[in-house]
Amino acid sequence: MAAKAYETLLWETDGPVLTITLNRPDKLNAYTGQMGAELADAFRRADEDDGVRVVIVTGAGRGFCAGADISSGAGAFDTSTAGSVAFSAPGKPREEGGGFVGAIFACRKPSIAAVNGAAVGVGATLTLPMDIRIAATDARFGFVFARRGLVPEAGSAWFLPRLVGLPQSLRWCLSGRLIPAEEALAGGLVSEVVEPEALLARAREIALEIAENTAPVSVALTRQMLWKYAAAPDPWELLKLDGPLSMELGAGPDVKEGVAAFLEKRQPVFPGKVSKDIPARAAELVPAAARRNAAS
Amino acid sequence: MAAKAYETLLWETDGPVLTITLNRPDKLNAYTGQMGAELADAFRRADEDDGVRVVIVTGAGRGFCAGADISSGAGAFDTSTAGSVAFSAPGKPREEGGGFVGAIFACRKPSIAAVNGAAVGVGATLTLPMDIRIAATDARFGFVFARRGLVPEAGSAWFLPRLVGLPQSLRWCLSGRLIPAEEALAGGLVSEVVEPEALLARAREIALEIAENTAPVSVALTRQMLWKYAAAPDPWELLKLDGPLSMELGAGPDVKEGVAAFLEKRQPVFPGKVSKDIPARAAELVPAAARRNAAS
Amino acid sequence: MAAKAYETLLWETDGPVLTITLNRPDKLNAYTGQMGAELADAFRRADEDDGVRVVIVTGAGRGFCAGADISSGAGAFDTSTAGSVAFSAPGKPREEGGGFVGAIFACRKPSIAAVNGAAVGVGATLTLPMDIRIAATDARFGFVFARRGLVPEAGSAWFLPRLVGLPQSLRWCLSGRLIPAEEALAGGLVSEVVEPEALLARAREIALEIAENTAPVSVALTRQMLWKYAAAPDPWELLKLDGPLSMELGAGPDVKEGVAAFLEKRQPVFPGKVSKDIPARAAELVPAAARRNAAS
Repeated sequence: MAAKAYETLLWETDGPVLTITLNRPDKLNAYTGQMGAELADAFRRADEDDGVRVVIVTGAGRGFCAGADISSGAGAFDTSTAGSVAFSAPGKPREEGGGFVGAIFACRKPSIAAVNGAAVGVGATLTLPMDIRIAATDARFGFVFARRGLVPEAGSAWFLPRLVGLPQSLRWCLSGRLIPAEEALAGGLVSEVVEPEALLARAREIALEIAENTAPVSVALTRQMLWKYAAAPDPWELLKLDGPLSMELGAGPDVKEGVAAFLEKRQPVFPGKVSKDIPARAAELVPAAARRNAAS
Repeated sequence: MAAKAYETLLWETDGPVLTITLNRPDKLNAYTGQMGAELADAFRRADEDDGVRVVIVTGAGRGFCAGADISSGAGAFDTSTAGSVAFSAPGKPREEGGGFVGAIFACRKPSIAAVNGAAVGVGATLTLPMDIRIAATDARFGFVFARRGLVPEAGSAWFLPRLVGLPQSLRWCLSGRLIPAEEALAGGLVSEVVEPEALLARAREIALEIAENTAPVSVALTRQMLWKYAAAPDPWELLKLDGPLSMELGAGPDVKEGVAAFLEKRQPVFPGKVSKDIPARAAELVPAAARRNAAS
Repeated sequence: MAAKAYETLLWETDGPVLTITLNRPDKLNAYTGQMGAELADAFRRADEDDGVRVVIVTGAGRGFCAGADISSGAGAFDTSTAGSVAFSAPGKPREEGGGFVGAIFACRKPSIAAVNGAAVGVGATLTLPMDIRIAATDARFGFVFARRGLVPEAGSAWFLPRLVGLPQSLRWCLSGRLIPAEEALAGGLVSEVVEPEALLARAREIALEIAENTAPVSVALTRQMLWKYAAAPDPWELLKLDGPLSMELGAGPDVKEGVAAFLEKRQPVFPGKVSKDIPARAAELVPAAARRNAAS
């Protein structure tokens, strides 16, 4: 697939793995409204492209994303002034919560944040709707909102406790201090820490373990079921879905291939496509709010 | 109590502890619809029997439960064909989500999974509604659904994140790979790993710590309160219950015995029975959906 | 500020840090209804006092709080009798769930439990609505309800799993046994364990890291957003709030100071006050139920 034309991102596919690189290295990939809009667009394309099985997001140069671009000074977050570049694409008001949150969340392909160097403010929160986070030893995270007079943004007051629990979220957000990679690992924010030069290779290894062994439709449904029902008040609504869904899939070609490959001790080749083979009964797994948010 | 007549399970009581053994050892205790129905029945009987204080579930032979029995081949999950034995009891459609989920969840006695050897697919998910999981060093778990073209079943998209958190659930379910006992311990799926020959003794020790020191009615209410309110959006509904419930219990015979035993530094002998002494105001702790699910 | 006149507590401020000391050392600070009412009052005053940035709660003498005062014997929890002192202030029925739960939860200042020695029963549960818990090496916790014939109280069936997860909550509450400080650390109940003589100094260090670096309004909103949305079923309601809230704050004086201080590499001096500068759109973060509960 040809590279997409983005100004703030690189889009590169290698087999089933798409790598999106935040690409303003002279600014430590500081976030702009344009970057948010392009990130949302990139995830929407990944969602629709059956050739993409897993998405990796990383940063160009020596940082991941240093946070909102505040190079315009003390008024950087004042969206009523022309100098503000923090949240909005040029000439557009900031969408509610940032369209990229909904686009990453609604995407039917799993995503892996490969965090090199600083991931601060929105640079930290934009990794939270992804499925897996790994970090280089020199990475550091900062939920610095309270030190700037702000509050956790981009849905992070929901995402962060879901990932690391409430006590750890409170410790990190109430102090606003920078968190080294090892503390992020101990707290559960990242699942692995590796040497900087091994970061992308390890992210790709995780991506390929998924891409080479699993059914695309199963993975799309699994990530959406986990994100949705992890937060449900009880299992009863889920049980009405997962039984019939298992029976429907069980009579279909992916399961026949999966069982046959297992019994024959070979790699499976699943025929099902995300773009057209998601069972209708599972269509509502991603709530309309996410799709609206992603589309805005 | 006489042993119950089950074909796929052993039912053995020793004092206050019931041990249910999955008993198809020549098939690594592979799950069948009949096993699911018998497991549900066994938990319903445990629920009603005041002589049973704690339930242990383990597997006969060298495995815990290797998953759905797929010995009929690639069509094993196709419930429209006669060859399917995976989910349904003979001649019966699979209940929504498997009646055993509701029966374990609604049971007023705590349960301990003592996992020996492989616990794969439904063999892993059937342990999730239990209260405590311990494993032998040679145990391994597999949330392998995506590798078979399936999705997490038996409510596991709700139960697993509730037990191990969302990031760990995503890592395990998106890859579908087998998880060694030590990784299950590090991830919080099991709370202890012991040598295989010590597994049942340790499970029994944990069971007796509960049975010998606590009030049966308190334990029934405690497990149901924790499962229900752990997932509640806020504490306000709970606070309307736990204050009046504490006052009602506080005026009753169990608390008088509990306080007296504590002050006299002796083992308590609690008079309250689960079958008849659950306060009416706590009757709705187990939602009707669970009871319907268990009864189906 | 002059010390408040409480009978069961000490109230001491040192700069921006308020220390509340449970003060019945001859009874290991055993809880009485009066202590609960005074604790609620102390948190309400902290909430309203702009001079207080962080609250520390600790115990006088060699314990934190040994639980409800049961010195009246086996009838201690029988609120229908005159001997009961466990839950109620003299002459008053126990409020639903204890007013102190709502007062701590609704407080717009973060709180730190510095647990010295035993924290048992309500002595353990009263720390749960606080934001941070640290313990001395000689601390021990006890969710002993099932050993007394009681159930988890003061909302702890909601709070405890939110802090330590469901499996750990079940292990601790079903057995009712005492938990040493190191196990509380491993289970996530406390975030640090320090030598007894270093406990208060460390609590103060954590308090000052918050007080010296963050905006009071941001901290008030951050703690309430995390507590509320950590338990929400999805992020969509939050995203409708945090975007507009970030924009409103972004145009205000705290953010201008926060960004300027960051760019000038100096400590910020935030002008915003909790008592009057909480944006109207965030007024509903603390649900009316908490305020009613706190006020009762």
